[in-house]
Amino acid sequence: MPFTLHPTLARDTVEVTRLPLCRVLLMNDRRFPWLILVPERDSVREIHQLSPADRAALIEEIAQASGVLERLFHPDKVNVGALGNIVPQLHVHLVARAVGDPAWPGPVWGSGAAVPYGEDELAEVRARLAAELTRIG
Amino acid sequence: MPFTLHPTLARDTVEVTRLPLCRVLLMNDRRFPWLILVPERDSVREIHQLSPADRAALIEEIAQASGVLERLFHPDKVNVGALGNIVPQLHVHLVARAVGDPAWPGPVWGSGAAVPYGEDELAEVRARLAAELTRIG
Repeated sequence: MPFTLHPTLARDTVEVTRLPLCRVLLMNDRRFPWLILVPERDSVREIHQLSPADRAALIEEIAQASGVLERLFHPDKVNVGALGNIVPQLHVHLVARAVGDPAWPGPVWGSGAAVPYGEDELAEVRARLAAELTRIG
Repeated sequence: MPFTLHPTLARDTVEVTRLPLCRVLLMNDRRFPWLILVPERDSVREIHQLSPADRAALIEEIAQASGVLERLFHPDKVNVGALGNIVPQLHVHLVARAVGDPAWPGPVWGSGAAVPYGEDELAEVRARLAAELTRIG
């Protein structure tokens, strides 16, 4: 069965690029620079269900994408989370957090409603992320 | 400088065991089976600050410990998170979640107050986790 992105992830994000393992998505929420990495593997819900080779790729792609968030947005902290209580398809959130952001110091998940980017702003943020991620990818 | 566990982590947890990279802690909160993995590396705040070899070890220890939570507690989902907004020392939460648990389907972080285990119960849970983690370690 070919990989299919979960419809909730498809609805809430735009695609930025594809790394060897993961599709990289940008959450359409201008409150936080927020990437989601989705390993292109079917029916995987948990990190421990990935093969060891895929896990090794995942942690490297997490590190690469976190480094990109740091270089572009200078966050005080990058939050990394694989929750999946609502969307079962394995996906890893990478969120650039800043002291005083709308959810600080709590988690972003379950904190208020998304504030969509303007159209031009979304295109610009996506392009900046894609350029950096492609450069390292 | 030798590795020193952050005092907040030391206060809120008991040590379960030590894996090659991480100290494994049990959160003293009987609402959720909740492990914390702390790489024994000084002054590291972000996953991308670890060496590639340490990252490879980290993702394997995450997978091993998640598998232990699954075998012992049969959760509906394991939540994995490295936040660090409050405690800067890099640490990875692994939380066995069940449909209908006190924070479901939200994140556990920032959700209510910890409910400490009874003394005997804490010793028993810790011993079961240590036995499983040592077996695979």
